[in-house]
Amino acid sequence: MAVRYELIKECSQTKARVGRLHTPHGSFETPIFMPVGTQATVKTMTPEEVRDLGAGIILSNTYHLYLRPGSDLVREAGGLHRFMNWPHGILTDSGGYQVFSLGPLRKITEDGVEFKSHIDGSKHFFTPEKSIQIQMDLGADIIMAFDECPPYPCDYDYAKKSLEMTTRWAKRCQKAHNREDQALFGITQGGMYADLRRESAARLVELDFPGYAIGGLSVGEPKPLMYEMLEATVPELPREKARYLMGIGSPDALLEGVARGIDMFDCVLPTRVARNGLAFTTHGKVVIRNAQYARDFERLDPECDCYTCNNYSRAYLRHLYKAEEILVYRLLTIHNLHILLKMMKKAREAILEDRFVQFKRDFLDKYGQEMVN
Amino acid sequence: MAVRYELIKECSQTKARVGRLHTPHGSFETPIFMPVGTQATVKTMTPEEVRDLGAGIILSNTYHLYLRPGSDLVREAGGLHRFMNWPHGILTDSGGYQVFSLGPLRKITEDGVEFKSHIDGSKHFFTPEKSIQIQMDLGADIIMAFDECPPYPCDYDYAKKSLEMTTRWAKRCQKAHNREDQALFGITQGGMYADLRRESAARLVELDFPGYAIGGLSVGEPKPLMYEMLEATVPELPREKARYLMGIGSPDALLEGVARGIDMFDCVLPTRVARNGLAFTTHGKVVIRNAQYARDFERLDPECDCYTCNNYSRAYLRHLYKAEEILVYRLLTIHNLHILLKMMKKAREAILEDRFVQFKRDFLDKYGQEMVN
Repeated sequence: MAVRYELIKECSQTKARVGRLHTPHGSFETPIFMPVGTQATVKTMTPEEVRDLGAGIILSNTYHLYLRPGSDLVREAGGLHRFMNWPHGILTDSGGYQVFSLGPLRKITEDGVEFKSHIDGSKHFFTPEKSIQIQMDLGADIIMAFDECPPYPCDYDYAKKSLEMTTRWAKRCQKAHNREDQALFGITQGGMYADLRRESAARLVELDFPGYAIGGLSVGEPKPLMYEMLEATVPELPREKARYLMGIGSPDALLEGVARGIDMFDCVLPTRVARNGLAFTTHGKVVIRNAQYARDFERLDPECDCYTCNNYSRAYLRHLYKAEEILVYRLLTIHNLHILLKMMKKAREAILEDRFVQFKRDFLDKYGQEMVN
Repeated sequence: MAVRYELIKECSQTKARVGRLHTPHGSFETPIFMPVGTQATVKTMTPEEVRDLGAGIILSNTYHLYLRPGSDLVREAGGLHRFMNWPHGILTDSGGYQVFSLGPLRKITEDGVEFKSHIDGSKHFFTPEKSIQIQMDLGADIIMAFDECPPYPCDYDYAKKSLEMTTRWAKRCQKAHNREDQALFGITQGGMYADLRRESAARLVELDFPGYAIGGLSVGEPKPLMYEMLEATVPELPREKARYLMGIGSPDALLEGVARGIDMFDCVLPTRVARNGLAFTTHGKVVIRNAQYARDFERLDPECDCYTCNNYSRAYLRHLYKAEEILVYRLLTIHNLHILLKMMKKAREAILEDRFVQFKRDFLDKYGQEMVN
């Protein structure tokens, strides 16, 4: 099997667990946060820098790479790992989420989705088979089934019909997939309805995927509702396979997800806000352009030991930001990814030592909502 | 003395020479190319990356740092080295060149120059004393006298009067300067008139600066005329002091300058063109956005061993450029600086082995005008 999940330790008080995911491009411990490299690059960073921060796997986007530079070109280059010089784990999404996010630019049928490129307006048609073909061309270690991500809010009937189509599409994806060095994960849906979430999970589990994602969350709903959907879904999923909560990146939601049995997360949040001058710190959010930092010669986060905090002052970072110097986007990206990746590392340690509940409480008490989107 | 030039070896056929410049922030061999960090950062790069490319000294701009973040702020931060996390050599220019480049936004008198900020239009007045005060606040190892850089073309009378004022200003700079850990270099001028170049040099040498720059060149004149001016100036300068040709960065002009006895160079060229997607290579210029590189999976320069060439294909670099990904600006900056810094290293080796003339001929034959701005 291309990808194998090895369960190492379960928390005695929550569903949190530590495991190891084995892929053709190395193994890494879970739970893990996957930095996002939308266009075959984690924005501003070299692969070595991403690796040095502790990432064992990154996510890249099928929709974007299909449009530019084209998945055939990436295949010719020897696949995505080689193209972008990242020899570790890669997961590609199916393009579904991006395509559905295009709103009026797309049209859904049982066959697939017609959409217009956000780059040049050209027309394209994604089917489950096409998404899998593209993902086989890209060559990630883990690829995702093509699903429909229903909007929020969405009525019960739509959510039910949607999950049924997503299940049919999941079968078509399995049928189309034939690369043995890749694992195809299924994506559970079900809107904000616990019974539909359970139904979606149960029906996908029948299809026996090597791993399962939970999609269609963090789409505008309150966090307690998202947690409720996790609680409905996870117990339906097999204990011996990896579970991936898509599109979540705020520190509190990561820990709440871990507590509910999630192994993998991804989100553009830490890297995107960094480029907007926002840093997560142990003393709350820092909006680096603010005048209060003009003569603040202290480190960005007094308790952080990342490259940025070890070498630069808030005053210098503010200067770079005001002067629109590219270096600042790198430095804040490094810091924000470090904060999240280190938090996940500490969460794994806490689970292994069976003190995760205390760790989570301490972390959230300290960082509070200040650090959160 | 804050800065000492040690002559190591002179070429037997040209005026090329290898020396060592000792500064309070380390020593480095000359001739050297100084990467430019206009706003207290070599654009896109960390200081460690710049250092790893072999740079022993960088240049930063008084005019820009005075306006933003302010030289008082940099002084409070502990000086420019600490502010920007660069513990090696720094040279600051005097602001003269930038101010004179503002054109209609500035007014020159014997006292100094009134100008308007390119950022917010606010009025400022630079005198020789003010330039030196700012440079003392910034705290570079080598600072520059405040000079007038006459336009090109410029008539004989203007050039003569200008060099006389530059000489008077040089004296005022010396009088204003009192940091013993900094060396104040004089700047020779004289337009495109060999006799004025000689006169300017002779009069500055009387003032006994610890080093001399040649200013007012590469302002639009043909290269042979620039070389003629170097040939007029350099013999007037003392053998035991460093010579710095300001604002030159094309590979051919660097080698021609070295052959005429220059020890130090700076220019935004390699870093600026990198951000515009242009790479110097042994096979000529590469304009990375061009369609011909879309499926070119070879390295940027087959003979280069920089980080970029070792790890990425032209196709990947083109993809990043088309997608406007920040990483590409870094990767091309690394490559272009590597090419120039390595060329200078090889020039030093050639001088030490008394084969500089052959080295220069081979280099220019091979790279030709293709590599040149």
